[in-house]
Amino acid sequence: MATSVRKLAELLGGESRGNVDSFIADGQSIEKATPSDIVFVGDEAYLAKLKEANAGAVLLNAELAALADQDVCPAHIIVDDPQGAFIQLLEHFRPQRAPAHSGISADAHVRPSARFGDDTVVYPGAYIGDNVVTGKNCTVHHGVSIGAGCQLGNDVALYPGVALYPEVIIGDRVIIHASAVVGADGFGYRFVDGRHEKIPHFGSVQIGNDVEIGASATIDRGMIGDTLIGDGTKIDNLVIVAHNCEIGRHNAIAAQVGFAGSSTSGDYVVCGGQAGIADHVNIGARCMLAASTSAHKDTIAGETYAGIPAERIKDAMKSIMSQKKIPELRRTVRDLKEQVARLTSRLEALSETDDGQTRSAA
Amino acid sequence: MATSVRKLAELLGGESRGNVDSFIADGQSIEKATPSDIVFVGDEAYLAKLKEANAGAVLLNAELAALADQDVCPAHIIVDDPQGAFIQLLEHFRPQRAPAHSGISADAHVRPSARFGDDTVVYPGAYIGDNVVTGKNCTVHHGVSIGAGCQLGNDVALYPGVALYPEVIIGDRVIIHASAVVGADGFGYRFVDGRHEKIPHFGSVQIGNDVEIGASATIDRGMIGDTLIGDGTKIDNLVIVAHNCEIGRHNAIAAQVGFAGSSTSGDYVVCGGQAGIADHVNIGARCMLAASTSAHKDTIAGETYAGIPAERIKDAMKSIMSQKKIPELRRTVRDLKEQVARLTSRLEALSETDDGQTRSAA
Amino acid sequence: MATSVRKLAELLGGESRGNVDSFIADGQSIEKATPSDIVFVGDEAYLAKLKEANAGAVLLNAELAALADQDVCPAHIIVDDPQGAFIQLLEHFRPQRAPAHSGISADAHVRPSARFGDDTVVYPGAYIGDNVVTGKNCTVHHGVSIGAGCQLGNDVALYPGVALYPEVIIGDRVIIHASAVVGADGFGYRFVDGRHEKIPHFGSVQIGNDVEIGASATIDRGMIGDTLIGDGTKIDNLVIVAHNCEIGRHNAIAAQVGFAGSSTSGDYVVCGGQAGIADHVNIGARCMLAASTSAHKDTIAGETYAGIPAERIKDAMKSIMSQKKIPELRRTVRDLKEQVARLTSRLEALSETDDGQTRSAA
Repeated sequence: MATSVRKLAELLGGESRGNVDSFIADGQSIEKATPSDIVFVGDEAYLAKLKEANAGAVLLNAELAALADQDVCPAHIIVDDPQGAFIQLLEHFRPQRAPAHSGISADAHVRPSARFGDDTVVYPGAYIGDNVVTGKNCTVHHGVSIGAGCQLGNDVALYPGVALYPEVIIGDRVIIHASAVVGADGFGYRFVDGRHEKIPHFGSVQIGNDVEIGASATIDRGMIGDTLIGDGTKIDNLVIVAHNCEIGRHNAIAAQVGFAGSSTSGDYVVCGGQAGIADHVNIGARCMLAASTSAHKDTIAGETYAGIPAERIKDAMKSIMSQKKIPELRRTVRDLKEQVARLTSRLEALSETDDGQTRSAA
Repeated sequence: MATSVRKLAELLGGESRGNVDSFIADGQSIEKATPSDIVFVGDEAYLAKLKEANAGAVLLNAELAALADQDVCPAHIIVDDPQGAFIQLLEHFRPQRAPAHSGISADAHVRPSARFGDDTVVYPGAYIGDNVVTGKNCTVHHGVSIGAGCQLGNDVALYPGVALYPEVIIGDRVIIHASAVVGADGFGYRFVDGRHEKIPHFGSVQIGNDVEIGASATIDRGMIGDTLIGDGTKIDNLVIVAHNCEIGRHNAIAAQVGFAGSSTSGDYVVCGGQAGIADHVNIGARCMLAASTSAHKDTIAGETYAGIPAERIKDAMKSIMSQKKIPELRRTVRDLKEQVARLTSRLEALSETDDGQTRSAA
Repeated sequence: MATSVRKLAELLGGESRGNVDSFIADGQSIEKATPSDIVFVGDEAYLAKLKEANAGAVLLNAELAALADQDVCPAHIIVDDPQGAFIQLLEHFRPQRAPAHSGISADAHVRPSARFGDDTVVYPGAYIGDNVVTGKNCTVHHGVSIGAGCQLGNDVALYPGVALYPEVIIGDRVIIHASAVVGADGFGYRFVDGRHEKIPHFGSVQIGNDVEIGASATIDRGMIGDTLIGDGTKIDNLVIVAHNCEIGRHNAIAAQVGFAGSSTSGDYVVCGGQAGIADHVNIGARCMLAASTSAHKDTIAGETYAGIPAERIKDAMKSIMSQKKIPELRRTVRDLKEQVARLTSRLEALSETDDGQTRSAA
């Protein structure tokens, strides 16, 4: 699979220079590259690193190529989108295995009323419930369970052990990773006679197009209406989105984040790992929550928040800085106390002297 | 399925008034209701909201009905328990699908020594180990794995992909959601010769009656004795209850909470999301831990805690408030410093003047 | 299975004294022991507790035996390693069930190209992909999914519902608990034209020897290179190790910890529950992170950290203590303010008097 730099450039429709006849066998990060590896550089800061690394070839755009001496790397390939080209080359150097299965496995457990779009693959050991409908080109791996009445768009991939409870609706090009659970009952009870009495959950979950959901993430179904995940939103592993949440479009929600019941987010929200959003709280569009942030109140669109409880990042930083100043502040106050005590006694003494004086002057 | 308000009132044994011949087709939240929807009102605060909403009918109790003008909603149904009646109507408007399976599927993997109570359903692709015993009317979904020697009570539901390790004991009316794991080995090692040596876990897990366990929650087995979950306790998604914990009755434990090894809770404890309880710590009965609280020490029964580390809510609030006062405090201290410096030099000057004075007066 | 103390001592190669003919039926913790139970004592502090407990026999080492009066417990067995002996006796008193299966189940879904070492057991309902190779004596439980090209060492146990994505490499004596997911795509996107565009993950996961991974933990595959878990490292439930992390050897990582992308740890790192490590951060060898710590920067080898953001434990404690001092500090500052105001007006008055005086003296 090793390919000359010249050929790689042709493959990418790019321009090559330097040692264009050398052979490249793989893509690699700059730090770990060997002379048979190609790397990419996305911004100028990496050119210096590149010079000290051992890569055999580099992908860069015209702008960076103009800045880069030839000796930063034996061979250069100039392309419009170096990262995109790099991904293309990894696909070239590391071809995926042919899929093991096609069609609906005879060893899957499929209810007769289920309907599948063209080129959909169901692995052995998957379960497909009553009246399930899938689009074209879906892949349902081993151990997946699709409840009755679920609807999948085109090009959906469900990895091993995914559980869809009944009536879940999923858009096109959705990827759900292993052991994720969509549509379980929300955590809703009413307290009656000293007991938590279960509130049935009649709503479901709707997942937009181009959503990706991480391994062991859980998206609960709504109580009356549906829990919603907007188009293009990416959810990392071990996240919970609770009942009746409405998550906006193109959010990026890192691992172990928790959205409590009926919380909502605007479009383009970014949540760092382990952040928590309280119930009924709205995270405004384009907000960023730092890792471990705990948002108890609505946030203002476009702002960045951090801390427990969440503050705007400037205030959160000030809080942290302030806290670090306390020991110094305590020392200052102790000094002041002593100075004031001294001043007081000196003033006392002075008043007495003064009194004495006054008298002696009288 | 649309039904007149009059008929709905008959169904519920309630009293109807207003536009009782109008047809209602569904239940909805007040905010989202249309004229064909019925809603419920649980307290007075919602009557004003109701007036501005579009619901076709409302469920309320006699007390609220006395307060409500007819014009808050075209039709009223008066019942003792509006929320309970609302749930009943949702069941009426949104009938569940008939179950797809009955009995023990021939496509399940069932060991010959397993025994099932009447009306128990085992889905295709489930695994039932040696000497498993279930009560009546249990449902074991696809992909569930029940280890050897497990005992289930009556009316237990295990959703897809639940794993019960061997010898787990489960009460009546227990619901365990998809991908939850009960009875895995606790995280227990002894450090010998520079290595963590696994301590075998000979205990198991006992789960009381009326317990619900969320998706992808994990309850580890005990080392010598059993990990215990008390009757009526509800556990949300992605919670860990570690080895040898003893959780009380009627607890409500929100998502992503962690109980470390041998921690315990009294009855009626409530934990907000992402709270953590350190090993061997006891959470007193009726305590509430706010979301993200980290309890490192025993808590006092009936108290509410917040913060990392946990403090009683009053102290935690004071800590947060105090922290916000630091910048002001620093400004005050800076002012004081200047004032004291000025006072000092004035006093200095005055002493000198005074001295001069004394002399001149002499 | 009840056995005399004398026999138990023989079994262990230990020395018995006291009531050596009494029969013991089980092992138990000191607190819960009855006269038919044996317990172990690992350090002196427990001898006093033992005396007040009801255990029938105790395991202790020679050193402790020299300190222990006979009356702390009716029978003593003296061995080199009391805890190890105790585990051995639990194995004696509580024999495990015979395994239900042997060999490769005809009800498993096994691709023809898969190869298994001797004495490997594959349960019904497991899936084994193309070209999978296992070592000897592995156990693959029901519902496990092993992707194409995975390689397992000897004595590997995969519990129900574990998902290995393709090409994952696992060492010897590795235990992976139920619903854990190894090798899912990392959470990596590039933002192009207002959308998060998925970056394919061409790397995989390599897991060393003697690793244990908890229930529902997730270890993501690398983007270019592999995510690495070092020999002897133990990972608790619901942990995420993100793409391209390199976790050292003999780490102990408690439940719900999150390692963000490309973070690394040295050997012998210990992480308390719910700790978080930001992307690209290195946790130095032998570091300890307290529960709920959020490490945003590299940590110094051998140090203990706590807090959000992480500080060395001494500083974190100081921060917490400082914070508690704020209310007192505010009171002190208020007092000082008043004193300074009084001083100022007294000094004012004195100056005037003095001025008057000066004049009158003139």
